[in-house]
Amino acid sequence: MSIRPTFEELYDPRRTLDSPSYKILGPNDKPTEGANIGLFINNRRDIHLAEMPKPSPAPGHVLVRMRATGICGSDVHLWHDGRIGHHVVNDDMCVGHEPAGEIVELGEGVTQWKVGDRVALEAGIPCFLASCEQCRLGRYNGCPVLAFIGVPPWHGALTRWHVHPQEWCHRLPDNVSYEEGALCEPLTVALSGIQESGIMLGDPTLIGGAGPIGLATLLAARAAGAEPIVITDLHQSRLDVAKSIVPTVKTVLIDPSVSQEDQAKKIVEAAGQEISVALECTGFEGSIGTAAFCLRYKGCLTILGVGRSIQSYPFMRLSLNEMSIKFVNRYANQHARAIRLVSGGVIDLKPLVTHRYKIEDALEAFRVAADPKQGAIKVHIQDLS
Amino acid sequence: MSIRPTFEELYDPRRTLDSPSYKILGPNDKPTEGANIGLFINNRRDIHLAEMPKPSPAPGHVLVRMRATGICGSDVHLWHDGRIGHHVVNDDMCVGHEPAGEIVELGEGVTQWKVGDRVALEAGIPCFLASCEQCRLGRYNGCPVLAFIGVPPWHGALTRWHVHPQEWCHRLPDNVSYEEGALCEPLTVALSGIQESGIMLGDPTLIGGAGPIGLATLLAARAAGAEPIVITDLHQSRLDVAKSIVPTVKTVLIDPSVSQEDQAKKIVEAAGQEISVALECTGFEGSIGTAAFCLRYKGCLTILGVGRSIQSYPFMRLSLNEMSIKFVNRYANQHARAIRLVSGGVIDLKPLVTHRYKIEDALEAFRVAADPKQGAIKVHIQDLS
Amino acid sequence: MSIRPTFEELYDPRRTLDSPSYKILGPNDKPTEGANIGLFINNRRDIHLAEMPKPSPAPGHVLVRMRATGICGSDVHLWHDGRIGHHVVNDDMCVGHEPAGEIVELGEGVTQWKVGDRVALEAGIPCFLASCEQCRLGRYNGCPVLAFIGVPPWHGALTRWHVHPQEWCHRLPDNVSYEEGALCEPLTVALSGIQESGIMLGDPTLIGGAGPIGLATLLAARAAGAEPIVITDLHQSRLDVAKSIVPTVKTVLIDPSVSQEDQAKKIVEAAGQEISVALECTGFEGSIGTAAFCLRYKGCLTILGVGRSIQSYPFMRLSLNEMSIKFVNRYANQHARAIRLVSGGVIDLKPLVTHRYKIEDALEAFRVAADPKQGAIKVHIQDLS
Amino acid sequence: MSIRPTFEELYDPRRTLDSPSYKILGPNDKPTEGANIGLFINNRRDIHLAEMPKPSPAPGHVLVRMRATGICGSDVHLWHDGRIGHHVVNDDMCVGHEPAGEIVELGEGVTQWKVGDRVALEAGIPCFLASCEQCRLGRYNGCPVLAFIGVPPWHGALTRWHVHPQEWCHRLPDNVSYEEGALCEPLTVALSGIQESGIMLGDPTLIGGAGPIGLATLLAARAAGAEPIVITDLHQSRLDVAKSIVPTVKTVLIDPSVSQEDQAKKIVEAAGQEISVALECTGFEGSIGTAAFCLRYKGCLTILGVGRSIQSYPFMRLSLNEMSIKFVNRYANQHARAIRLVSGGVIDLKPLVTHRYKIEDALEAFRVAADPKQGAIKVHIQDLS
Repeated sequence: MSIRPTFEELYDPRRTLDSPSYKILGPNDKPTEGANIGLFINNRRDIHLAEMPKPSPAPGHVLVRMRATGICGSDVHLWHDGRIGHHVVNDDMCVGHEPAGEIVELGEGVTQWKVGDRVALEAGIPCFLASCEQCRLGRYNGCPVLAFIGVPPWHGALTRWHVHPQEWCHRLPDNVSYEEGALCEPLTVALSGIQESGIMLGDPTLIGGAGPIGLATLLAARAAGAEPIVITDLHQSRLDVAKSIVPTVKTVLIDPSVSQEDQAKKIVEAAGQEISVALECTGFEGSIGTAAFCLRYKGCLTILGVGRSIQSYPFMRLSLNEMSIKFVNRYANQHARAIRLVSGGVIDLKPLVTHRYKIEDALEAFRVAADPKQGAIKVHIQDLS
Repeated sequence: MSIRPTFEELYDPRRTLDSPSYKILGPNDKPTEGANIGLFINNRRDIHLAEMPKPSPAPGHVLVRMRATGICGSDVHLWHDGRIGHHVVNDDMCVGHEPAGEIVELGEGVTQWKVGDRVALEAGIPCFLASCEQCRLGRYNGCPVLAFIGVPPWHGALTRWHVHPQEWCHRLPDNVSYEEGALCEPLTVALSGIQESGIMLGDPTLIGGAGPIGLATLLAARAAGAEPIVITDLHQSRLDVAKSIVPTVKTVLIDPSVSQEDQAKKIVEAAGQEISVALECTGFEGSIGTAAFCLRYKGCLTILGVGRSIQSYPFMRLSLNEMSIKFVNRYANQHARAIRLVSGGVIDLKPLVTHRYKIEDALEAFRVAADPKQGAIKVHIQDLS
Repeated sequence: MSIRPTFEELYDPRRTLDSPSYKILGPNDKPTEGANIGLFINNRRDIHLAEMPKPSPAPGHVLVRMRATGICGSDVHLWHDGRIGHHVVNDDMCVGHEPAGEIVELGEGVTQWKVGDRVALEAGIPCFLASCEQCRLGRYNGCPVLAFIGVPPWHGALTRWHVHPQEWCHRLPDNVSYEEGALCEPLTVALSGIQESGIMLGDPTLIGGAGPIGLATLLAARAAGAEPIVITDLHQSRLDVAKSIVPTVKTVLIDPSVSQEDQAKKIVEAAGQEISVALECTGFEGSIGTAAFCLRYKGCLTILGVGRSIQSYPFMRLSLNEMSIKFVNRYANQHARAIRLVSGGVIDLKPLVTHRYKIEDALEAFRVAADPKQGAIKVHIQDLS
Repeated sequence: MSIRPTFEELYDPRRTLDSPSYKILGPNDKPTEGANIGLFINNRRDIHLAEMPKPSPAPGHVLVRMRATGICGSDVHLWHDGRIGHHVVNDDMCVGHEPAGEIVELGEGVTQWKVGDRVALEAGIPCFLASCEQCRLGRYNGCPVLAFIGVPPWHGALTRWHVHPQEWCHRLPDNVSYEEGALCEPLTVALSGIQESGIMLGDPTLIGGAGPIGLATLLAARAAGAEPIVITDLHQSRLDVAKSIVPTVKTVLIDPSVSQEDQAKKIVEAAGQEISVALECTGFEGSIGTAAFCLRYKGCLTILGVGRSIQSYPFMRLSLNEMSIKFVNRYANQHARAIRLVSGGVIDLKPLVTHRYKIEDALEAFRVAADPKQGAIKVHIQDLS
């Protein structure tokens, strides 16, 4: 009903890179006191801090002082591989899509916020034009021009200051910390999976994978009353974390040399029955196939993870048992729910954060996040000063 | 993500009424050749034509030369009662919310249309801001500030020229006439009901009421493979129309002196079995109660019509049979579907139009639409010159 | 596929009453040591213990030594009113439909049980013939010939020994007590409501009524991750119980002199937002209407309770907000789920039992259950000897 | 609630084979006048007629004079391969699972039928014990001991007389012929797919494969108001049949040398838009993958066919578009619906039968059914004398 600037006009990543004040910081460089800095990757598998201008909020946007930002496995993947699916890093790009912070400046026409409001940011910004079928249908995660911050080509929020559209900020109640606010991003992925799976109170449930998404899904499944819950992983240390945050969960260590059918037998035995709902958080063909062998008649296999482009599944197992497979792509309409669950004490996300760093130490944070031997679950960049 | 004008700024009804060229036409006044005219009601149960300025499209809007506009029962109701629910006619107001026409001018920034495009207009204009819960969830018919044209306070499209936001115009393929395009509006109401009801191929179905919405619902239910279908009405003439447009429908004439249980027995007998889905298009308590007595265990009673504010239902019948009641409020995301069904020959709406008038004769058209003795189903104002 | 005895042949209530050993016990009569006794009501608003024969299990049936049986509000209602809906007490009838016990004898052909097995009994026995539409569709609670024990004309299980079909016994794991097993019956009612409501993790939820079903529903809603939860009642004492078993619940005391709209405002204020799912456990028109005014757009009003045959609702509120109403009639396929939730520690039912009596003192138990001043939630008859 | 004979006791296939009157008929043998005969396959890829005793109905069973039985692709597959999935032909076995006939004798206790009733037989006989989870949940096609007639080890109904349980016979109204009654079997497969797919009036739909199931699905999808509909096949002749029975369908000839993505482009072009619902009737990996590339965001891929045990799919296409896959295994609760649709004129199955034979000529019928060059769609064995 009006003419809005395009994402290219609003968020052009060259604006930062071409700014005279954009400056890559070497490992021993200290950033200028009070300057805006961010963590950048590029297409040479390089990672570095850079100084850059403190941005001004465009109309309808707010300037956010970042307080907590999580490092996601996909951030590490982007650093190492230079791409995620068809999203390719072509240039210096600031990462960070699990952000929370404090509103410090309002763009023109911003009415829903005031300076000092505490918010979690939703990373995916859809066009939200009524002419967009997916936006109009309420599944805006499918918007074909979705700008997901921290995924190429758009800069992310692992900075000191970040500008975000007012509609995609979500208020944090007083009893939800910035750290928890940032953790709401992986929780929304879990909530999408929970919602799509149709899980019901008392459903025997399998969670494939005990990484950050798997653990957030475990917390969400327990909060939704799934019972029993079995979680699997290749690493006993991760299963131990699962057990520590949800003591009633049953754990099954995956042995890659064992067949899917035999893995499934162990899982069914741990559950004491066949599974009704599987929430697959690894994206591995073998884990998905194993889930198919665990599920009962008309079981639902919900796949939250991404993985290899082409995958093989046990067709006849799925067919003869009238199963369904649901694929989940990030999230839509989940942030308010996530924050409500944390604020209400239904889900406690805090145990997921194992490491906290200042942004000046973000390179070290990434190295820890990327090294399985460190046993990190969620590594956070925080600035609570 | 930008600052958009409000509906008050865009569509202020005073702009038309306060214009120097706004002029009420008496019964014998001839409108100026080539002038814009519209049909207006007011809060004195009056109805009249008026001359008014030909509008210019605001940014993101198009100017539409109206070609066909249906008269709805609610238009007549507004004329006679001066209100619909909490929507009160306080001033001269142009009616018309079943419109189709031709795009003749583009506002600034309009990219999805060109002059000459043929369109049906969606009457409800939601805010479509991402901060609006209902718009974000894809059920924009629930937008709390929805501007529904032709319902107070917003002027409608029963005019020669009307300005509409580009996103809420829907393309008519070459094989769909303007008349059919206008008829898509009542069809979208029916499609909402069909969708909410969860009706499936082969479901025994009851349609309560054989007015325009009831008949559109009958066409849609037949197109969806409902079988058998029973339709009811207080007037045999309407049942005859139902039979003529869907020969396999079974008809039951309602006798208001008969109890709900006994009416239901006649309906079940006509169907040869209990009903699975009832699509209630009258909004009358008695018709709704009758439907409850027709439905089988877990039957679904979908209510498309509006009616008295407080209504009494047979609670224990509903409870012991685990029924569900679904209330439908207009439509969202149905226009493209409606046009596809008409274009594909799945639904033939043309038999619904029984009377056609030029806009200069709109008063006569309203009198016919308002007089049950005329046997009109759908009265149309058309300008196909 | 074979010829099965009818319910009349299997469970004819006259067999007990016409037995030579059937003997009504006066208030001071002591039952014969080791005799079978049961609690009977009749059509003279009378209540008494009676001696009766210890039954033998028919083929496919088991003899159960009753260990715990709850008294339901409907038992008291039957005693006082002599009927529930169209189920009329015409004769001496043994009550009790919330039973758990120990299998002590197997009828011919019983293969799924052995003596000593601990079970909860499902009270509704459907025909379970494939020719029965409801049984075939998996919603056997709708079986038109369903024999619900303890509801006229069928004798219930508030006895020392009771015969039950093997298929409608549900195994209690070692960590679920008989008391908890008996409490699974009201929990299945709550689980039916939860399931029909489509409630999701994080849905703002209203529970109407804090009696036994309301409290079981509260426990189930909390276990399903509803947040926030508001519960209402006419009695502060019941709200206090609610608060004690679910400390995070918000309570609203209902004032019958306040309008539905104003009650709703208090509830919405307590929740901090409009409600998504209402679980109505009172069956009162006023409570149902209040729920309608609390619900947000497309909210779901699930009605678990029964009440007056004809009830009035705020039609336009429901219609303009596209709400749905779902009526729940007891339960199907919920017992295994209920037991799993209790065994897994997801739901703790024990706080619901406020009074425990031996069967010899069942009259006193009924008097306490029937007297609101006693503050009883769930009164149990137990024999754990 | 009683003791029922097992399927082994009721339907032991050895009873026929060990009968003194069982006699394999050579190609030139004429069966004894008035004898019962059936078409048998074995584990030597052999096919033959055999004489056998005319059976007597067990209690709860009826004797049916077979009037029409369709030959299914799976019959031919069983003949040629000696197995379907894990169902292996170990012995002479009578085929036939698409049967309709006339009840000519009643077993003890049969109350729902009388001699002369015309019925279609449901081929899958579940245990229908309340202790069976799948039977109790209304999805009896998942019964783990389901006896599907004409699939090893159970004899089928391609005979003159066949005994069937009374509950699994479905009444044919006067206006539904035996031929149509027999065709209801493949229609129920299509209806299961339609139901699971959640297809709605006006959904753009793809049907993969134009064999008998594909064509039945086409008829059902058209009857359900799908629009547009595209159907694919490797053979133009089958697409021509599709076009002749549903003139508005769009056809796309599959070229196996073309990539899935490129096939999909042709299909999307034929539909004029992306597809919402794909109904896959081939069971081929390539056809399923092609469907995935046709579907729009949140599209549903319903797979009715069976195929290779392990199959590869385009994971990232499915994941990034939040698709769902639903697998369908035969049918439950569809026969009454199928018959209703045929009787009501909503679906016309008659064009599917291209060849009709007497049972004496069943070998020739199988040869025609097995030879793609014959262009047969559905080959029927009929005895309408």
